Amino acid sequence: MKVITVGLLGLGTVGGGTVNVLKHNAEEISRRCGYQIRVGHASARDITKARICDTSDIQLTTDPAAVVTHPDVDVVVELIGGDTLALEMVLLAIEHGKHVVTANKALIARHGSRIFAAASERGVMVAYEAAVAGGIPIIKALREGLAGNRIEWLAGIINGTGNFILTEMREKGRDFADVLREAQQLGYAEADPTFDVEGIDAAHKLTILASIAFGIPLSFSSVNTEGITKITREDVRNAEELGYRIKHLGIARRTDAGIELRVHPTLIPATQLIANVNGVMNAVLVKGSAVGPTLYYGAGAGSNATASAVVADIIDVARALNVPAELRIPALGFQPQELANTTLLPMDAVESYYYLRMAVTDERGVLAAITKILGDNDISIEALIQKAHPEGELTTPLVMLTHKVLEGAMNRAIAEIERLPSIHGQVLRIRTEPLQ
Amino acid sequence: MKVITVGLLGLGTVGGGTVNVLKHNAEEISRRCGYQIRVGHASARDITKARICDTSDIQLTTDPAAVVTHPDVDVVVELIGGDTLALEMVLLAIEHGKHVVTANKALIARHGSRIFAAASERGVMVAYEAAVAGGIPIIKALREGLAGNRIEWLAGIINGTGNFILTEMREKGRDFADVLREAQQLGYAEADPTFDVEGIDAAHKLTILASIAFGIPLSFSSVNTEGITKITREDVRNAEELGYRIKHLGIARRTDAGIELRVHPTLIPATQLIANVNGVMNAVLVKGSAVGPTLYYGAGAGSNATASAVVADIIDVARALNVPAELRIPALGFQPQELANTTLLPMDAVESYYYLRMAVTDERGVLAAITKILGDNDISIEALIQKAHPEGELTTPLVMLTHKVLEGAMNRAIAEIERLPSIHGQVLRIRTEPLQ
Repeated sequence: MKVITVGLLGLGTVGGGTVNVLKHNAEEISRRCGYQIRVGHASARDITKARICDTSDIQLTTDPAAVVTHPDVDVVVELIGGDTLALEMVLLAIEHGKHVVTANKALIARHGSRIFAAASERGVMVAYEAAVAGGIPIIKALREGLAGNRIEWLAGIINGTGNFILTEMREKGRDFADVLREAQQLGYAEADPTFDVEGIDAAHKLTILASIAFGIPLSFSSVNTEGITKITREDVRNAEELGYRIKHLGIARRTDAGIELRVHPTLIPATQLIANVNGVMNAVLVKGSAVGPTLYYGAGAGSNATASAVVADIIDVARALNVPAELRIPALGFQPQELANTTLLPMDAVESYYYLRMAVTDERGVLAAITKILGDNDISIEALIQKAHPEGELTTPLVMLTHKVLEGAMNRAIAEIERLPSIHGQVLRIRTEPLQ
Repeated sequence: MKVITVGLLGLGTVGGGTVNVLKHNAEEISRRCGYQIRVGHASARDITKARICDTSDIQLTTDPAAVVTHPDVDVVVELIGGDTLALEMVLLAIEHGKHVVTANKALIARHGSRIFAAASERGVMVAYEAAVAGGIPIIKALREGLAGNRIEWLAGIINGTGNFILTEMREKGRDFADVLREAQQLGYAEADPTFDVEGIDAAHKLTILASIAFGIPLSFSSVNTEGITKITREDVRNAEELGYRIKHLGIARRTDAGIELRVHPTLIPATQLIANVNGVMNAVLVKGSAVGPTLYYGAGAGSNATASAVVADIIDVARALNVPAELRIPALGFQPQELANTTLLPMDAVESYYYLRMAVTDERGVLAAITKILGDNDISIEALIQKAHPEGELTTPLVMLTHKVLEGAMNRAIAEIERLPSIHGQVLRIRTEPLQ
């Protein structure tokens, strides 16, 4: 049987998983693609360390460039992470005519255009299914499965850590900080959780999804990103009471004015399937012009789940190895010269429904003052919760849902409301989406 | 721009949708695949009839063979349905070196092996994404997206009519026959609803999914099929009370003894995402050895939704048009010579949990007699509901959930229970699956 030799950069969670999946499913994989796929070479910072996989038949080195340039290696699998050494190695691989598979969302979101251009010039493939939503084959679904559609919008739970935290807050009435600590202990969240809870990781993934969905250049710097750190368990409970769940979503939407790219906590109807995606699981809801809504659900992280996508990419590369380069599916699904520089909207120009929470003092006329400001800004209220004044507290929480309005108008209204003497502190705003 | 000419057989719901989707999304499709895709020729039984699509630039004929053999036609899209004329036309197309796209599950499930062999010999593609779960790209997910996995099992809601009926029965407490009548009026169900409610349509689709999942020959005749006609609204309510929903599932599972292929009503935990797939929507839950559970959800039928899959297939064909035939992905995802003749298990050899409902007279010792029979057959009870004796009725309904047992043993136990004098009529049995 024909053999394909993989050179692996990184032998951690995903690297080890890739070795394991290739080994355990070797027979099935060969039956599918007609190739025996073997990991011949691998690099790691410390090659003496104990691993989750058997490395006895792999040539190990601390020098990733040695793996990349080794003449036996057909496909370089980049699992180093980050975008310095990883970028260098991926470009080196392309330069040497090697195909590349990567799980690195930051790399693709930030440097994808440069990488794909280099790969295209050299006639090699760069595959990155594992970069978004782990084991869910969402890149393939968008790039090929839904290719007959004009994609209208997509919304994804694409960060497992954030979803774990919000799920725990809802199911157990816990506080954000408390759950974050547990997530760190469980290994779901990094010691520095910024990438996860501030939405940067999700923004990387959204950048990639939007590019494939709409045929636009990768535009990470245009994603409007907001984290989940200000969400309290009261917000989670209020949302529930109103028939919603709070999820940290990456949303990309095509409107007449341009394309919205945004990551933020979002109230979504509890009856929506995606509202019931819990724990560390991921899901992406895609609205196509022909197919309507479709949803893709699965594990967004983890050793074998991510390796599932890495291995699928290696198999794709194997299957297309002898296909002339110009006949292969382009990296972003659209012909490179057909990527459109559509306007990317700033957050002010995004229309959304809103959940507002504020602390008011029990004075006559405060509600009238708030509703007047909203009315003056053409914002109408859909629902309102005013709880009994909590004993011993100075203020009463006031919660409302608004109809659809431009974020710019909402910002002006919030600024005015915050200037009212009977409002204490800031108004918390969570965008609300029907996802329909 | 290069042009691909499609010859369409059938201009009904899906055919008309295909014309519409190709027209509405023409620009997007060209940006993706680099081809202009046009429907040049189409056949229909009555070419004077009003259509849901504009046919002014399509050459119409009543003779499908004229479309198939027309020298301009590159890709034949078969949307005739059934497996007589459709089979003839597909084989004729292959014979003439035309690529084929079809939405015909009966055709692929029953004659796929013959069709794929002919296509392979002639070096043409046969694509059939639309044959299973309408617009959901589940064929591509299984065949490519999850190619790194050994698939352990899959379970799908793959008949929209059946799911609509069961959803209405649950949400509105209605009777099967009543909802079926409405489904027929709404056009969801055919005048002869046998294919849908008896599970034959689902069995066709399951045959295809199982073949791609496990790399086994298409084996429609080995699917164990049971319909939903015996389910009452009481069963739906009892299931709810026990924390379950009843869904008509197609299940394919690999066990040490062989492969289970079965379509039947199934109790599944209400907390499962797939339990919340309602109305005419479809979903397939796939358990891969590496990725774990993944779910694919969307519209399983309808004009544009099904056309979405047809057009995706046409784009796939366009993209691979100039790829040497031996380098294209094989029709069932596995290399044809690698299909394994794994044992397909008869229903007796399938292990399942069970929901049992029976009508008992209020006599002393009846419960003891039933539990003794179950115990003698190594069947233990997990939950039991005995309602108060309904006024004016001769019997009391008794409902139970059992632990896992071979269907053969359950059949023996049921036969014995039905012989008890205090049991009236038959014992209704619904298989119960944790889907984990």
